[in-house]
Amino acid sequence: MVVATQSLEKLCINSIRFLAIDAVEKAKSGHPGLPMGAAPMAFVLWDQFLRFNPKNPKWFNRDRFVLSAGHGCMLHYALLHLTGYDSVSIEDIKQFRQWGSHTPGHPENFETDGIEVTTGPLGQGIANGVGLALAEAHLAAKFNKPDCTLVDHYTYVILGDGCNMEGVSGEAASIAGHWGLGKLIALYDDNHISIDGSTDVAFTEDVSQRFESYGWHVLHVEDGNDDLGAIASAIAEAKKVTDKPSMIKVTTTIGYGSPNKANTAGVHGAALGADEVKLTRENLDWNYDPFVLPEDAVSHLHKAIERGAGYEAEWNATWAQYKSKYPTEAAEFERITSGKLPDGWHSVLPTYTPEDAALPSRKHSEKCLNLLAPVLPELIGGSADLTHSNLTELKISGDFQKGQYENRNVHFGVREHAMGAICNGMALHGSGLIPYGATFLIFSDYMRAPIRLSALSLAGAVWVMTHDSIGQGEDGPTHQPIETLASLRAIPNLTVIRPADGTETSGAYKVAVEFSKQHNPTLLALSRQNLPNLAGTSIEGVEKGGYVINDCDGTPDIILIGTGSEVSLCVKAAEALTAEGKKVRVVSMPSTDLFDAQDAAYRESVLPKAVTKRLSVEAASSFGWHKYVGTEGDTVSIDRFGASAPGGVVLEKFGFSVENVLAKAKALLG
Amino acid sequence: MVVATQSLEKLCINSIRFLAIDAVEKAKSGHPGLPMGAAPMAFVLWDQFLRFNPKNPKWFNRDRFVLSAGHGCMLHYALLHLTGYDSVSIEDIKQFRQWGSHTPGHPENFETDGIEVTTGPLGQGIANGVGLALAEAHLAAKFNKPDCTLVDHYTYVILGDGCNMEGVSGEAASIAGHWGLGKLIALYDDNHISIDGSTDVAFTEDVSQRFESYGWHVLHVEDGNDDLGAIASAIAEAKKVTDKPSMIKVTTTIGYGSPNKANTAGVHGAALGADEVKLTRENLDWNYDPFVLPEDAVSHLHKAIERGAGYEAEWNATWAQYKSKYPTEAAEFERITSGKLPDGWHSVLPTYTPEDAALPSRKHSEKCLNLLAPVLPELIGGSADLTHSNLTELKISGDFQKGQYENRNVHFGVREHAMGAICNGMALHGSGLIPYGATFLIFSDYMRAPIRLSALSLAGAVWVMTHDSIGQGEDGPTHQPIETLASLRAIPNLTVIRPADGTETSGAYKVAVEFSKQHNPTLLALSRQNLPNLAGTSIEGVEKGGYVINDCDGTPDIILIGTGSEVSLCVKAAEALTAEGKKVRVVSMPSTDLFDAQDAAYRESVLPKAVTKRLSVEAASSFGWHKYVGTEGDTVSIDRFGASAPGGVVLEKFGFSVENVLAKAKALLG
Repeated sequence: MVVATQSLEKLCINSIRFLAIDAVEKAKSGHPGLPMGAAPMAFVLWDQFLRFNPKNPKWFNRDRFVLSAGHGCMLHYALLHLTGYDSVSIEDIKQFRQWGSHTPGHPENFETDGIEVTTGPLGQGIANGVGLALAEAHLAAKFNKPDCTLVDHYTYVILGDGCNMEGVSGEAASIAGHWGLGKLIALYDDNHISIDGSTDVAFTEDVSQRFESYGWHVLHVEDGNDDLGAIASAIAEAKKVTDKPSMIKVTTTIGYGSPNKANTAGVHGAALGADEVKLTRENLDWNYDPFVLPEDAVSHLHKAIERGAGYEAEWNATWAQYKSKYPTEAAEFERITSGKLPDGWHSVLPTYTPEDAALPSRKHSEKCLNLLAPVLPELIGGSADLTHSNLTELKISGDFQKGQYENRNVHFGVREHAMGAICNGMALHGSGLIPYGATFLIFSDYMRAPIRLSALSLAGAVWVMTHDSIGQGEDGPTHQPIETLASLRAIPNLTVIRPADGTETSGAYKVAVEFSKQHNPTLLALSRQNLPNLAGTSIEGVEKGGYVINDCDGTPDIILIGTGSEVSLCVKAAEALTAEGKKVRVVSMPSTDLFDAQDAAYRESVLPKAVTKRLSVEAASSFGWHKYVGTEGDTVSIDRFGASAPGGVVLEKFGFSVENVLAKAKALLG
Repeated sequence: MVVATQSLEKLCINSIRFLAIDAVEKAKSGHPGLPMGAAPMAFVLWDQFLRFNPKNPKWFNRDRFVLSAGHGCMLHYALLHLTGYDSVSIEDIKQFRQWGSHTPGHPENFETDGIEVTTGPLGQGIANGVGLALAEAHLAAKFNKPDCTLVDHYTYVILGDGCNMEGVSGEAASIAGHWGLGKLIALYDDNHISIDGSTDVAFTEDVSQRFESYGWHVLHVEDGNDDLGAIASAIAEAKKVTDKPSMIKVTTTIGYGSPNKANTAGVHGAALGADEVKLTRENLDWNYDPFVLPEDAVSHLHKAIERGAGYEAEWNATWAQYKSKYPTEAAEFERITSGKLPDGWHSVLPTYTPEDAALPSRKHSEKCLNLLAPVLPELIGGSADLTHSNLTELKISGDFQKGQYENRNVHFGVREHAMGAICNGMALHGSGLIPYGATFLIFSDYMRAPIRLSALSLAGAVWVMTHDSIGQGEDGPTHQPIETLASLRAIPNLTVIRPADGTETSGAYKVAVEFSKQHNPTLLALSRQNLPNLAGTSIEGVEKGGYVINDCDGTPDIILIGTGSEVSLCVKAAEALTAEGKKVRVVSMPSTDLFDAQDAAYRESVLPKAVTKRLSVEAASSFGWHKYVGTEGDTVSIDRFGASAPGGVVLEKFGFSVENVLAKAKALLG
C-alpha cells in the first residue's frame, strides 16, 4: 500500500532504509551502522550517476563504488538487491551477519559480487578508492586512443567521520590531490556522530579546508537528508572538474527517521529495537511489513538492469572497434585484463652460480623488476620515499604523475599505510595489474592493516621489503626488524619469502607474480647487504618453500636450516662440521608458508622426524621456529632489539657468524 | 682562529653544522640526515627559549624538545654536547652510529640523557609531542594553584616533510588542535626535499592550510637559513597564543652551505664526502679542524648550564612553597612523580570464585580500571572511539577536553596510531603517569609502530585490547584477530596477557601497573563474550605467566594448555577425560612472555619434558605454540581468517568447543 504523499524517490530511499532496519533488527547484534542518513546520497548516486551492470558485476568499464564506512554495509547490500544483482537476494538480506551468508558484517569483495573492496577497518576504503582511480587513470592513459575511449570510469567513495579521522585517509587524500585524480569523487557523510557520541568530543577540525589543502575540489550539500537535487548537482559538478579529485561534504542526520535515536550514537552501534522500529515506520509513513518492498521502488531501481546492459553494449561496440583499429594494443589489453601471464614470461628471470658477484638481494630484486618490466607491462608500483634504497625503479618508465598517468613508477611519498591500501585498490580494480609497494621491512608495521587486508581480500599485491634484518646497521633498533618476519608469517594467506641469493630472488619473483595473478599477495624480505650466490639454490626450491641445498650421505647428524642472508652461514658451518666428520644437511627455507603448503611426504623428506638435532639460523626472532627445530633443536636468533652500528658489526655481535653457528651446532651434537 | 666576519650566532650555528658534518663523515655510511638547514632554528630555540638544565637532564619542569625528524639526530647530539650535557662528549660524537656508543643512528631516550623520546620512524615524534603536551596540561590543571605554578613548560618539536606526510602526524595534529594544547609548538623544517628528491614528486599539499584546518595557530618564517630574528619572533608569538598549538613553517635549504649538494636529496641520504666537506668549510668560512669548536661558541652555548641551574633553583623555591602551602597535593605530586606506587594499591583488585557471575574479561577490566582510578590518580587514558565497547571509562572523572585538562578520560577519536604515540609521549613525560590506550585487538595493527616503540623506548603504557578473538562475531574477518596475538607476543619487551576470567584480569592489571612504573608496556587481550570464573586461577599465577590450575595425581597423560576464553574449554574437557580415567593437567597460560621469563625449574614443573602429549587451545593462530606443545603435541587453533556470524557460532564452527578439544586430546592420547 503505497502512501500517496510519498514520492518515488522517497519510496526508493525508504526501501533502502527499511531493508537495512529490518535486516539489522533481525540480526539483533553487533555494530551494524544503520545507513539512514546516507541512503539519499547513495540513492542519487546509484540512480543517476553510477554506471554498472547488475547482471555482469565485473563488467570492465563499470564505475567503482566503495563504501569506506563499511559498518553501513546494509546500505550496499540493499542497493545491490534493489538494483537487480543476483548476489544479494532477499533471503541473503534476512541472513545478514549470519554464518555462511553473502551478507557479512562488513563489505567483503570475496563474498559478494558487486562489492569492489573489503572495508570496515576505517580509512581503508577511501585509500582503496585512490588505487582504483589510479588504475583507471593509468589504463586510460595507456590504452585510450583519440578516437576510441576504452577505459573511462569514475570511482565513487562514501566515507564517514571515522574514515576521516584515520591517518591513512589523509595520506591517501594528499597523494590523490597531488596526482590530480579527477575521476575520484568522495561523498563525505557528515553526520557528526561516531561511536563515542558527537564528533564534538574528538573531531572538530574543518574537513573541507583540509581537503582543499590537499588540492581537492570541495563541495558542500547542506541538507543531505532531503535535498536530492543538491546532491545530484554536486555530483554533476564534481564530474565536471577532471583535474582534481572531488570531495562532497554531505551533511546528514544519522538514524534519520528514528524519532528517538536519530542524531545519537545509539543508532551507530546497535539495532533500533522493536519499539523504535515501529515509531520509525510511523514517522516515515512506511506501512510495509519487514522485508516487503513497494513495487514502484523495485521497478524503478531495476531499471539499472536495462541501463547496465546498454552501458555494456555500448562498451562492447567500442571494444570491437578498438580491436579492429588497434589489434596490437587490443591484444595486450585482453591479455592483461584476462589475468593471464604471457607465455614464457619467467624465462627472463636469471639464475646465478657461486662465481657470480655477491650482491644484496634488494639489488637482485631491482634486476628482476627491470627484467620483468618489459615482459609484464601490468607491473606498476614504487616506494614510500625509499626508491633508491629499496631499488624499485623501473628504468624503462617515467614517473606516474599528474598528466603522466601512463608511467609506472609510483612515488607514494612517506605514506606506507596509504601505499598499502592504494596497491590493494589497484589489485582489486580487476584489470590484471600487478601492483608493488616498497619500504624497509620494519615499516611494514605502518602498513600492517593493508598487508593483512591484501591477504584477506585476495588483492594480489607484491610487497617489496628491503633492509630485512639487523644487518640494516647504523639506523639502529628503530629501523631493524626483529619480530617482523614472524609477525608477517603469522598472517593467513600471505606468503613471505626471504631469498638467500640471486637465484632465490628470481624464485621469489616467479612465485610473487604467479600468486598476484591468482589474487594472492606475497611479501619479499630482501637484504641491504651483499649475499654470496650459493651452490644448490634454485627457483624450484623456492617454490617449495624449503629444500635441501647441501646434503650428506645417509641420515644426517644435524640439519642446519637457514633463510635469506643466513643460509651462507649454514653452508660454511656445514663445511667445517663435515671436515670434522659430521653428517650435515643444509636446508634453505626461504618461505615457511610455502613449505607448510607441501605434502607431508615432501616435508618429511626435507626434515625427517628421525633427525631431531636441528638448528635454525635467521637474523630475527626465534618466534615460530620451534615448529621446525622441535623441542630438541635450537635457534640462532635474536630475541631483543638491535643496535646502531655498521651492519656487519651488528650481525657479528648478535651471533650471526659462522663461529657461533658452529658453536651452537656442536652444542646440539653434544 | 675565529673569522672576524662571523657573528657569534653564526659561529654557534656552524658549530652545530660541522659537528654533524664531521661526525657523519667519520661514520661514512647510512642515512644520516645532515641538519644544516635546521641548525639555525634549533640554535634560536635552544639559545633563547628552551628551558632545560644540562646538568640535571631530568629536571621536572624542563621544556620538552623532540626531534621528530629523527634522522637528523646529530643536530640533537650537537646541541646536547654544546650546551653542556655530560651525556654526549666529543668522543661520543666521534663514535656516531658505532657499536656501544651513546650516539646511535636515531635519537633513543634510553641511550642518551637529554633525549626525551625515541624517534626515527617518521611522524612518531610529533605525536609523542602531543602526549608530552597533554601530560603537561593535565598535571598543570591538576596541581597548579593560583599562587603557585608547579607545572609549566612548553613542548617543542622539529618535524620535517616526512613527518608531515605520515598519517599519524595528521591524526595527532587534529586531536591536538581539538584539545587546544597551546604549549605545543612545532617547527616544520620546510626544506622541500625528501629521500626520493624534491617534495614535488609526491608532496604538494598546502601544509599550513592543513594545520589551520586542525585549529592550529600557523606562522611562517620565510628565510629560515639566515633570518634568526624572524625565527625568534615567530617562537615568541607562538608562545603567546595559549589556546591553540602553534605550527611554525620555517623554510630552509637542506644541506645549507654545501656548494654542490645543498637543496638536493644527495645530502639527505649520504655523507657529503671529503671534497664537498672541504668546499663547504670554505663556503661557510669554517677554518676549524674536524671536531674542533670555536671557544666563543662553546662558552656562549655553555651559558645554558648557568641558566639551567637558575631555572631549577627557581622551581625548587616554588616547590618548597607548594609543599608548605599544599602538603596533601605536594605529597601526591611527589609520590606520582617519583614513580612509586601507593602502599597496598593492589588490594583493591578483586578475585572471584566459580559462583560469581560469568562476565566478559573486558567487563572485568572496566571494574579493575574503576577500582584503580581512585587509588592511582596517575591512571589516565581512553579509547580510539570505542569507549563503550572497550569499557575503559573512568567513572570518577569527566572527559579530558580543552579547558578541562584535569580530567582523565581521553577521547582519542578514531585515531589508533596517534593514540599509541600520544600514550608513549605521556609515559615518557617522566612524571609517573600510567597512560592506557584502548581499541579492538585487531586494530592494534593500526598502531603497531607505537606499540613496538613503547617496548623499545621503555614507555610504560598499558594497551587495553578487547574483542580478542573470532568470538568478536558479527563484524566478521576484518574485525577478528587471528595472527594478532602471535604477532604481538613476538615483540621483544612487550608483555601480552590474555586473562581467563575475573581473577586473572585482576592479575593482568597488577602486572600492567607494576610494569608501567618499571617503564615497560603491557598489552591486555580481553574478551567480548562472557567467561565463567574458574577454580584455581590466581593473581600470582598470572604473574608467572603459566601455571597449573587443575591437576591429577602423578605424571599426567596429557597437558591441556589454554589461554583466555579457551581455558574453560580445557577445564571441561579435562573433567570429561578424568571421568574416563585419564590423568589430565590443565595449564592456564595467560602470558607466554611472563612464563618464558621464569626459571627453567619452574617451567619444567608446569610443563615437564616427560609429558609430550600436550594440547594448546587458543582461538587464534597456532603460530608460536609449537614451542610449548612440542613436535608430539597438537593445537586447537585457527590458521585461516574468520567469518561473520554471532560469536558463539563462529567459535563453535571453527572448533573451539569442548567436543573438539576432547576429540583432539583423545587423538593425542591414541
